[in-house]
Amino acid sequence: MPYRAPVADFQFLLDHVVGFEAVPATEKFAEATADTVTAILTEAGKLADEVIAPLQRNGDLQGAVLENGVVRSSPGFKEGYEAMAEGGWIGISGDPEYGGMGLPFTLTASVNDMIAGACLAIGLNPLLSQGQIEALEAHASDELKELYLPKLTSGEWTGTMNLTEPQAGSDVGALTTKAVPNGDGTFAITGQKIYISWGDHDMAENICHLVLARLPDGAPGTKGISLFMVPKYIPDENGNPGKANDLRVVSLEHKMGLHGSPTCVMSYEGATGWIVGEEHAGMAAMFTMMNNARLNVGVQGVGVAEGAYQHALAYALERKQGKTPIENGTGTIADFADVRRMLVQMRAETYAARAISLACSTAIDMAGATGDKGWKARAAFLTPIAKSYGTDTGIKVAELGVQVHGGMGYVEETGAAQYYRDVRVTSIYEGTNGIQAMDLVARKMMDGGDMAFRLLDEIEGTAEGARETLGELAKPVWEAAETLREATEWLVEQDLQTRFAGAVPYQSAFARVLGAYYHLKSAIAEEGRGPRTALAAFYIERLLPDHASSLEQARAGAEGLYALSVEDLAV
Amino acid sequence: MPYRAPVADFQFLLDHVVGFEAVPATEKFAEATADTVTAILTEAGKLADEVIAPLQRNGDLQGAVLENGVVRSSPGFKEGYEAMAEGGWIGISGDPEYGGMGLPFTLTASVNDMIAGACLAIGLNPLLSQGQIEALEAHASDELKELYLPKLTSGEWTGTMNLTEPQAGSDVGALTTKAVPNGDGTFAITGQKIYISWGDHDMAENICHLVLARLPDGAPGTKGISLFMVPKYIPDENGNPGKANDLRVVSLEHKMGLHGSPTCVMSYEGATGWIVGEEHAGMAAMFTMMNNARLNVGVQGVGVAEGAYQHALAYALERKQGKTPIENGTGTIADFADVRRMLVQMRAETYAARAISLACSTAIDMAGATGDKGWKARAAFLTPIAKSYGTDTGIKVAELGVQVHGGMGYVEETGAAQYYRDVRVTSIYEGTNGIQAMDLVARKMMDGGDMAFRLLDEIEGTAEGARETLGELAKPVWEAAETLREATEWLVEQDLQTRFAGAVPYQSAFARVLGAYYHLKSAIAEEGRGPRTALAAFYIERLLPDHASSLEQARAGAEGLYALSVEDLAV
Repeated sequence: MPYRAPVADFQFLLDHVVGFEAVPATEKFAEATADTVTAILTEAGKLADEVIAPLQRNGDLQGAVLENGVVRSSPGFKEGYEAMAEGGWIGISGDPEYGGMGLPFTLTASVNDMIAGACLAIGLNPLLSQGQIEALEAHASDELKELYLPKLTSGEWTGTMNLTEPQAGSDVGALTTKAVPNGDGTFAITGQKIYISWGDHDMAENICHLVLARLPDGAPGTKGISLFMVPKYIPDENGNPGKANDLRVVSLEHKMGLHGSPTCVMSYEGATGWIVGEEHAGMAAMFTMMNNARLNVGVQGVGVAEGAYQHALAYALERKQGKTPIENGTGTIADFADVRRMLVQMRAETYAARAISLACSTAIDMAGATGDKGWKARAAFLTPIAKSYGTDTGIKVAELGVQVHGGMGYVEETGAAQYYRDVRVTSIYEGTNGIQAMDLVARKMMDGGDMAFRLLDEIEGTAEGARETLGELAKPVWEAAETLREATEWLVEQDLQTRFAGAVPYQSAFARVLGAYYHLKSAIAEEGRGPRTALAAFYIERLLPDHASSLEQARAGAEGLYALSVEDLAV
Repeated sequence: MPYRAPVADFQFLLDHVVGFEAVPATEKFAEATADTVTAILTEAGKLADEVIAPLQRNGDLQGAVLENGVVRSSPGFKEGYEAMAEGGWIGISGDPEYGGMGLPFTLTASVNDMIAGACLAIGLNPLLSQGQIEALEAHASDELKELYLPKLTSGEWTGTMNLTEPQAGSDVGALTTKAVPNGDGTFAITGQKIYISWGDHDMAENICHLVLARLPDGAPGTKGISLFMVPKYIPDENGNPGKANDLRVVSLEHKMGLHGSPTCVMSYEGATGWIVGEEHAGMAAMFTMMNNARLNVGVQGVGVAEGAYQHALAYALERKQGKTPIENGTGTIADFADVRRMLVQMRAETYAARAISLACSTAIDMAGATGDKGWKARAAFLTPIAKSYGTDTGIKVAELGVQVHGGMGYVEETGAAQYYRDVRVTSIYEGTNGIQAMDLVARKMMDGGDMAFRLLDEIEGTAEGARETLGELAKPVWEAAETLREATEWLVEQDLQTRFAGAVPYQSAFARVLGAYYHLKSAIAEEGRGPRTALAAFYIERLLPDHASSLEQARAGAEGLYALSVEDLAV
């Protein structure tokens, strides 16, 4: 069975679960009518199924290569990319003034999920452009906007993000790339950047690098960093790619997976750049780009989870081993309890992770449409959870997918291993999941936990409302929310180091409770009868309970982490 | 930091934790004196560190290849193999009559753990010979024993196990390979076998295939299967490799990892074989081989966990990012709470998994030395737990190792990714961890749970004994054992399908409680003061709590697994 975008799940989640109905009710997104949403989901599904999914194996087996200083992309990728660009799929949420459709980011996230499930390597490319479009819309001069946004939105040009340097990873403030004014309003950018996804390729006519660098009078640390647009080819007076800029690809990383997505070491050698936003305010501009990019990476995890799940299910339904243990079974290994358990878990986790990401994107849309602080806080709070749970789910589900395949999962020919290798990077890039957790328990809880408590109120309210009709599902969700509330009340009273010690398990527990909440809402929408109710029961009964041990770990404090000295660790 | 075999941990576990002191007190193993044990551990550690570890990257980057029908092993592997053979490391536990040292299997397991941590791919080879030695010792005719055992024990020849066929994986009984009597006491073996690890290579002068096949009058299913010795070269009258047998390597699998270990598709084309054991009793003979092989695979997981842990720790202690959050820190990322959490978890899980595997091997030794049913039952019960927890730990720790490395973990050059890719097969081969769990809750609990309860008595007794001195650690261990006892009492009353539905989470919970128990014993041995006590506290406080949610899942029953129809799953 080839990949089939789960259009019905998106439709159900948007119609009944994540509160998306508020979005088309706003003035900004009035055009996102039910018909439009359905049309977008359906057409994107076709693109993913028919055009993108066939590229998945090519990207792995014939990865991008660096030849004579230029990157050649995998066979078929150029055509696949052009289909995404020509269909307008890159600029779904772009400003209509620059050729975008102006539709909610939730639809972009849905489409990106489908594309990632079909082929993560190629799906990563438009994500970078989308992040760049947002950053430019928010911070660039009108001149830069007019020059770059139409090309990025149409997909004629693509974007990259240049943050990391060998010594400056999670600590971006340690970067040493320099920007020196040329005297004509432009800047000479010099330095080396690593981990630049799609830093070069042959699928579009220009590549626009957003580069973090330090001006001569920039302070040390993050406060002295500025953001620059550094195109591969400097646009001529007509806005067409002109002379080559002074930058080059030094090498491609040899990665565990995602071979179809070239990860470049970039060298800027006095390259001409244009400042984006204010001097020394580059981090703020980059954060605009990074927030939605983080959600988009979570979405990648969900997409790969879907692909790995469908792949494993198809294999299980073909593979016969021994006598079926159930009546009216399929006669395949999908009848065996433990294989079935893995398959249902894969589906239940993927569904929950998708719901969380769509709830996050809905909040982003509402924040954008209303400017409301509450929506902004909700979007900000849900982003690290969506990023980490989406990617953890992608990794977990791909791992289960390998296991369902048995020996064939370890053999590359089946493709199960590719999902496992490809998705592994998602819990690392765009801020590791540990960094997400630190963001969650520190910055995102500077409100004293207010946003967390509002989410918990919402969960408990829904659970209370379903007490009569769906008590068996509602009660454990309510209780879990209460346990999470107590842990949150404790957490916000702690110093930062104590919070950080428990940040990752706290983040996991929050995702678990949210996942159960959206499953419960699905069951409520089905009035307790239907496949999503059965899925909800599985999640709530079998997976939700681990929130308790996660919270015990979250509350265990920092001291025990340092009770073993470094010398003792190294014994 | 290159790999360093954790000799001190082995010594401590054997001296204080896993009950190994009973082994040299038996007549059979009287020679396993304290000095001998220390010498074996120390020398094996040197071999692993100095000879085997340097092969790790070769095995990945220049994997085994099939050239003109023969397998060429990775650079340096032949010399590494010869060092293992010449040092006598393959036959540590072999019968002295055939050149073995006759030492406890626990020492074999310890050495295999070290070798696997240094380089899993080459370490897999002697495991197969060791399994074959055991099977031959138990079932072969004297003639076969005299011909093969000395060569296998010395490592001049190596062994393989041939069970799987394309349609017969977990369902071994579906195999179709035929054995037809030649009339001279030998048999003509015809069929195709897959997943044959080290099915061919250039490191030894002969390769001895143990092959499961069906005689013409063999019943369908597992009851009609016999076991045959089918050597690559038929020994001549002097017992030296003579004429080539009618078998060949069809192809090598292209795997996610373990590239240094050739995984062969073997074709037997009327090859000459000698029966091992009785006709139609091949499964029983194979199980002799499989039981210790299963433990040995668990040990592989532990070894890789150790390698991945040491690798990540070394990286963390070199990598500087941002300002250290603690006083008197190292100034590296190992100071950050979440990185430290990952590192300590890696060490704590590895330590627990190693303790369980050594407790299992100790029971095997005691069973072998005393013939006592209780020891046999203990060994049998612990085997699936040691196999599954060891390999799950290998995978989990390698995953954390990648995460500690950040972006560098996804780049192949660091080697972190290799651990992750290599170890992934261990939860699949030698019976998937799901198969182990089914074995645990069915066959291994046909005693009505008696062995489980005896283990729980032991755990609770130890915890009670430590109540005064180490109450904070002992109490949660005692409580967890009680929760596990209740779940076990429930489980043994259930039908098979219900047990199978919860088998994997039950198995995980049992491993978790056992892991905590051995950590507690380590703390007791340190009298509550020392690094192992700190490690125990981490494990008991932060990791043990998840036994509760695992047991909730174990008790959730089978019905909910099938509440979603196959059609609903495929939506």
